[in-house]
Amino acid sequence: MSNFQFDWERESRTGTAEAVLCVGKTDEQIAAIANLAIRDDRRLLLTRLRPGQVKALPAPVLTRLDYDPISSTAILGALAPEDSLTGGALVVAAGTADLSVAKEAARTLAFHGYAAPLIVDVGVAGLWRLMAHLGALRAARVLIVVAGMEGALFSVVAGLVEAPVIALPSSVGYGVSAKGRAALSSALASCAPGVLTVNIDNGFGAAVAAIKILRIGTLPKL
Amino acid sequence: MSNFQFDWERESRTGTAEAVLCVGKTDEQIAAIANLAIRDDRRLLLTRLRPGQVKALPAPVLTRLDYDPISSTAILGALAPEDSLTGGALVVAAGTADLSVAKEAARTLAFHGYAAPLIVDVGVAGLWRLMAHLGALRAARVLIVVAGMEGALFSVVAGLVEAPVIALPSSVGYGVSAKGRAALSSALASCAPGVLTVNIDNGFGAAVAAIKILRIGTLPKL
Amino acid sequence: MSNFQFDWERESRTGTAEAVLCVGKTDEQIAAIANLAIRDDRRLLLTRLRPGQVKALPAPVLTRLDYDPISSTAILGALAPEDSLTGGALVVAAGTADLSVAKEAARTLAFHGYAAPLIVDVGVAGLWRLMAHLGALRAARVLIVVAGMEGALFSVVAGLVEAPVIALPSSVGYGVSAKGRAALSSALASCAPGVLTVNIDNGFGAAVAAIKILRIGTLPKL
Amino acid sequence: MSNFQFDWERESRTGTAEAVLCVGKTDEQIAAIANLAIRDDRRLLLTRLRPGQVKALPAPVLTRLDYDPISSTAILGALAPEDSLTGGALVVAAGTADLSVAKEAARTLAFHGYAAPLIVDVGVAGLWRLMAHLGALRAARVLIVVAGMEGALFSVVAGLVEAPVIALPSSVGYGVSAKGRAALSSALASCAPGVLTVNIDNGFGAAVAAIKILRIGTLPKL
Amino acid sequence: MSNFQFDWERESRTGTAEAVLCVGKTDEQIAAIANLAIRDDRRLLLTRLRPGQVKALPAPVLTRLDYDPISSTAILGALAPEDSLTGGALVVAAGTADLSVAKEAARTLAFHGYAAPLIVDVGVAGLWRLMAHLGALRAARVLIVVAGMEGALFSVVAGLVEAPVIALPSSVGYGVSAKGRAALSSALASCAPGVLTVNIDNGFGAAVAAIKILRIGTLPKL
Amino acid sequence: MSNFQFDWERESRTGTAEAVLCVGKTDEQIAAIANLAIRDDRRLLLTRLRPGQVKALPAPVLTRLDYDPISSTAILGALAPEDSLTGGALVVAAGTADLSVAKEAARTLAFHGYAAPLIVDVGVAGLWRLMAHLGALRAARVLIVVAGMEGALFSVVAGLVEAPVIALPSSVGYGVSAKGRAALSSALASCAPGVLTVNIDNGFGAAVAAIKILRIGTLPKL
Amino acid sequence: MSNFQFDWERESRTGTAEAVLCVGKTDEQIAAIANLAIRDDRRLLLTRLRPGQVKALPAPVLTRLDYDPISSTAILGALAPEDSLTGGALVVAAGTADLSVAKEAARTLAFHGYAAPLIVDVGVAGLWRLMAHLGALRAARVLIVVAGMEGALFSVVAGLVEAPVIALPSSVGYGVSAKGRAALSSALASCAPGVLTVNIDNGFGAAVAAIKILRIGTLPKL
Amino acid sequence: MSNFQFDWERESRTGTAEAVLCVGKTDEQIAAIANLAIRDDRRLLLTRLRPGQVKALPAPVLTRLDYDPISSTAILGALAPEDSLTGGALVVAAGTADLSVAKEAARTLAFHGYAAPLIVDVGVAGLWRLMAHLGALRAARVLIVVAGMEGALFSVVAGLVEAPVIALPSSVGYGVSAKGRAALSSALASCAPGVLTVNIDNGFGAAVAAIKILRIGTLPKL
Repeated sequence: MSNFQFDWERESRTGTAEAVLCVGKTDEQIAAIANLAIRDDRRLLLTRLRPGQVKALPAPVLTRLDYDPISSTAILGALAPEDSLTGGALVVAAGTADLSVAKEAARTLAFHGYAAPLIVDVGVAGLWRLMAHLGALRAARVLIVVAGMEGALFSVVAGLVEAPVIALPSSVGYGVSAKGRAALSSALASCAPGVLTVNIDNGFGAAVAAIKILRIGTLPKL
Repeated sequence: MSNFQFDWERESRTGTAEAVLCVGKTDEQIAAIANLAIRDDRRLLLTRLRPGQVKALPAPVLTRLDYDPISSTAILGALAPEDSLTGGALVVAAGTADLSVAKEAARTLAFHGYAAPLIVDVGVAGLWRLMAHLGALRAARVLIVVAGMEGALFSVVAGLVEAPVIALPSSVGYGVSAKGRAALSSALASCAPGVLTVNIDNGFGAAVAAIKILRIGTLPKL
Repeated sequence: MSNFQFDWERESRTGTAEAVLCVGKTDEQIAAIANLAIRDDRRLLLTRLRPGQVKALPAPVLTRLDYDPISSTAILGALAPEDSLTGGALVVAAGTADLSVAKEAARTLAFHGYAAPLIVDVGVAGLWRLMAHLGALRAARVLIVVAGMEGALFSVVAGLVEAPVIALPSSVGYGVSAKGRAALSSALASCAPGVLTVNIDNGFGAAVAAIKILRIGTLPKL
Repeated sequence: MSNFQFDWERESRTGTAEAVLCVGKTDEQIAAIANLAIRDDRRLLLTRLRPGQVKALPAPVLTRLDYDPISSTAILGALAPEDSLTGGALVVAAGTADLSVAKEAARTLAFHGYAAPLIVDVGVAGLWRLMAHLGALRAARVLIVVAGMEGALFSVVAGLVEAPVIALPSSVGYGVSAKGRAALSSALASCAPGVLTVNIDNGFGAAVAAIKILRIGTLPKL
Repeated sequence: MSNFQFDWERESRTGTAEAVLCVGKTDEQIAAIANLAIRDDRRLLLTRLRPGQVKALPAPVLTRLDYDPISSTAILGALAPEDSLTGGALVVAAGTADLSVAKEAARTLAFHGYAAPLIVDVGVAGLWRLMAHLGALRAARVLIVVAGMEGALFSVVAGLVEAPVIALPSSVGYGVSAKGRAALSSALASCAPGVLTVNIDNGFGAAVAAIKILRIGTLPKL
Repeated sequence: MSNFQFDWERESRTGTAEAVLCVGKTDEQIAAIANLAIRDDRRLLLTRLRPGQVKALPAPVLTRLDYDPISSTAILGALAPEDSLTGGALVVAAGTADLSVAKEAARTLAFHGYAAPLIVDVGVAGLWRLMAHLGALRAARVLIVVAGMEGALFSVVAGLVEAPVIALPSSVGYGVSAKGRAALSSALASCAPGVLTVNIDNGFGAAVAAIKILRIGTLPKL
Repeated sequence: MSNFQFDWERESRTGTAEAVLCVGKTDEQIAAIANLAIRDDRRLLLTRLRPGQVKALPAPVLTRLDYDPISSTAILGALAPEDSLTGGALVVAAGTADLSVAKEAARTLAFHGYAAPLIVDVGVAGLWRLMAHLGALRAARVLIVVAGMEGALFSVVAGLVEAPVIALPSSVGYGVSAKGRAALSSALASCAPGVLTVNIDNGFGAAVAAIKILRIGTLPKL
Repeated sequence: MSNFQFDWERESRTGTAEAVLCVGKTDEQIAAIANLAIRDDRRLLLTRLRPGQVKALPAPVLTRLDYDPISSTAILGALAPEDSLTGGALVVAAGTADLSVAKEAARTLAFHGYAAPLIVDVGVAGLWRLMAHLGALRAARVLIVVAGMEGALFSVVAGLVEAPVIALPSSVGYGVSAKGRAALSSALASCAPGVLTVNIDNGFGAAVAAIKILRIGTLPKL
């Protein structure tokens, strides 16, 4: 698709690199974008890339691609070594069904050079599971909390820590919580002040926001 | 309104007495109902009775009326003495703004002869406030939990106790939680299994359900 | 999935055992959870387990599994003999299309040692069908009423019995009742006081709540 | 308002006379319309006419006006004597709070020359109240059933009679049934086949439809 | 499914025969119901029967079955000869995409012995197409009007005829009219008084209501 | 309010002058804006200006103000003489209750120098009322059609004319059409191709769009 | 489908030719319509025609068909040569995922003889991409702006140009923007006055409206 | 209200002090809370405090109170001197109608010791107004962007800066943007990655989140 315009300057302008949301794009469009990145020698993050779309990619793209089927993300180009990553972020997920969204966030952090430790299966119906991680929760500089269903985890975590909490509602649930609606409402209506929200299943956006927040720690003190 | 039909047999049939929801009724209709109850020498619970409606009642009704402006409930006829009330129920409310709904539940319990201790201001943003009451929470046979906003309290309480939890969403909130919608969704979508829900602000219904549940403790063992 | 944390203490803490909701979990995650249960010699209830997911389970799990395709539930480990089950609960379903949800509730009751007699096809459009069961309805200590479409059955049953009624809206319907929304609203807005509601299609939750209620009959009298 | 165009031919074309919905009209517009009717010597039905609007009417209109504050309807011109009215219709209302809507329907029937007997306070939470009227219900040729809250009455009545049932949802209720939404959904999703619905609180429309249906009884047999 | 209870008395009680909604029923349940009808020598109407479900039926059922794939309806047992059908009803559909719903109504009428002439492709964007049928429209005793998208046809037809109009919103549309929501709202909010509505795509219900209305023409004059 | 920034260049940039929406502004803010306009010798259109807000304006503003209470619009500065206005636009309103919105559009047209003839009370329930104006409808270069309730008028008018139709849904209605939702859906879902829509009650926006369209007639031919 | 009525006069009456929306039509119905057009020697535009439906068309239709899989449109009959097309319209799309909708609009314009240059990938997150096209944006006489997600592009473009802007919300997005709802709301609520909206994904309707607007430039000056 | 429990430790635990949301609290409750704060010698922020509630406060509270009617906030106790405030935050509001929400955020920042410069009237319909502030926008470490209506400003600002953007949707608007729904959707669906959202009109929450983010700049570098 020759219409596509890369925004390679985005990184210098907004602090995070261009990524490609693959939903609604044809196989041809995705291949063209990936080829462009290879041609320009750029790293690229692809999100919401289904396995069928991966298979349709041309060989030169596939060999350069690190694909994770759980999060449906792919990274074109090298990842920084684990021990070179910047710390400060923490991803907390209520249940195993939230893993795909949590890992989209974690992979986005890693792509940009940030470590993304993951705590899973700490739903509020068994508070002790969450409390066992209290030290890690309080040590983080920014937290991404993933939850579907009723999303009570957002408020509970935010009540326990000083750092900003990014609520990432997942589309896990049925009935009134189908498609993440109940979890989203809980994030926005949280009684714990200072909870911030992104769109349902938007692991990429949550990670980009976390990166922008962590960067503040690298600026000169006011 | 001569059309009104009292269901005095409801108590024997369903176990709880008739009550009168005053919303949408004219002053004349409420007075007629109250007079009927006095004539038939029956006790009566009136809910959602606004102060203006109270003022419009005839003197013989007013002198027999115990009106509570916070819960907008009125009881016509005598209340059982405090120390004769049956225990087992507990009403827990997230914040002071939930008090009107919580007290509608508590007054309905008292009208039917059940004690209704009240714990208020235990929102999950400060978990320690709730934890300070853990003994009382676990001692209750049935809990009515009142919360507006994101309603995270329902899941947290239900994860701490063995007894059945009746979630009573209140219309406290604004934006996505306006009119209790977010709290209702959280109650229904709770990740803590076995949470039961009633309509938004339905303190009367929550109390009637609690009474039906407590009665099971009086039946012969299976 | 090594992230998964079993909450084996849930039973002693909240009175009902851990169950696994299989929606949104990968085949690998379900197999890992089942293997953990076998290793720890625990019984396990799996809900919303699709036939395709059953087929993907490893043989040692499959041979220990009692799978019911109508309710999409599976029980790992032995079921108590029919005549040892505790009575008191009754499941009432409006139509045959509600059976999958009704049986999820019934299977959950049986897994926990409670009998779950089932009355089906008693929609209010032919009241005599319901009235034929009046004796059984009034004998129950707690009723789970399953209905989709307009959910009128909740109010009608609740008007006939003294026991608490748990309304379980099913996603049977189309147009305005698609996905159970109309039935859910009817449950919450019931004119029969004391109706309690769970999320749409939440047979598991309705059963857990019923068990918590029945347990009150085993506590010392107040 | 000189822009207003009377549709005096509507009666001959569609079988029912013009009526004026007063919501959203200024006092001047209502007065102008009423004066036009008087000038042309026409009878007129005014609906949703608030008391304040009545007071603002000029004296020559007021003296010709039969105003009913419960239904907020006014009739300009003579009403047919009670015993000259055509029978066949029956209006059934769940509770006293539904009376304003029920009477809008009844007044519209009377304005057009049809009798409109009214049965009130027959909610399904006490089925025996409804069953006491079974004879009248089955004798009617067309029934208008008014209910708010969960609107279970529509299905129950439709299951008992052969005649067509017009469900008239009222805006009585709160929480999920606020503004009549739950009752409307129940009417549309009714499991009793052949229930017909009109808009929330549309007593006028329900009555006009009933009249069109009753007229079929006056046509030559097919 | 042995739980199924036929309501063979429904016809005498409510005037229309039992029909079976096949959505949400398993192949086994549908076969069992059909066998029951054959055993009891009853005619049966099956709605929302998908071709795949038809194929799964046992041979003795299939040979007695008249299946129409456009309306997804099947009739078990004989249909009355065309010229013996009672007249008076008319089905009007806005576009060819509405045919499946319109034919569900028409087949239901035919099953019960009523003729159901069909006028199609008369959307209001070309009024002359509708006006060409004005004679037929005005001759009908009851009209079923089918429309999706914005549903303007309901009001336009109702403004042209004296007979009652049953609006049958279809799920034809996309965007704001997806799943029939816009058409349903238009039906309920119609500015033409006396329009009656059924649920989206409920061709069966519209036909049953039409039959109940037509029957009034066979009763003794008041 | 010194924060306010006038966009006097908007007219040259976008072709229509700045206007001030008065909802949500304090009396002080409106006065400050009006004074700024007088100081800079600019004409100004104020919309949604309630009578109470008018009274609170300072005398120098009031004497220069042409206020219309039906449309709640005010014009500061001189209006062009009637016979100097440019023609081509036509405003059509379904009922008298739509007049306030229709006149907001008409006043906005007049403020910008365009004639705005008004046709009222032509709802589709009486098609002949609309047809009587067919000549005027077909002569217009652009039509603004105002309707609330079910909004069928949009499609009917668009099916009769060649010119672009701007649907302007009004908040006239109740139940499902409350706040203009049903009319808005009908506008967007219209089966008449080429209907364009603006927000509910947005008479100002409809007029600005009409002006932009009429301007095309003044550009050199392509 | 013999019921189908072609509206060949539509072009003379409303200025744009008949088109066929293929969603919800059977293969037989589409073939019948295409054959009718060939018989009557008419050009035809088919929209929302899926590849599977194309394959099912009879050979004589297929050989005359120009099918575009991205926009799912097909043109039966000859297209005017590129250099004979009338100019003035411009289609602007936020991202490549919006291309299918944008091309439905462009193909509809081309079918009617209008040029439809396309600018893609100019989302507001990188304003400079849009600003690079400022000349083309301001030269257009009418703009169709396509955007999904939050639809901010509508307001930004409308603030930059004098010409009328038709907002065409696309169903690109997820979570709160799923199915185009957020983009549609942004179009209707735009703070840039004079934005006009069509239904979600309605590329055909946007193009027809643009054509009606461009035609004004061919009328005699007022 | 003796039930109220102050959470004076919140500041040390979560980094921001307790504040009191006054909506839904009685005059007595607010006075009691204020007296408690005075007794314990604590500063207090009160939000959503209506002028009528201010008047009802006892004199000792009133004399210590700094009340701002535009934002409906009150501060009990001393404010830090302007030049001692920490910088880094910036509040940007689309229009003057958004000022009340913007100032709730600014006052909350000031209460906690942070400077809160305010840029107003920079809606995207006139991009140049926003661009004039590009330097200030890019210098901020965290931005709170307030917008109602379609909320396009969130995406445009986020595309221009590196710092995290907190979108604060305001309830300014009507029709589809009534009560802030359209603006909220735009914030969540923003095409500019990394936009964070809070509930509609939640100026307090946005400010608390901004403070938590700014604090990161004071932590030791990673």
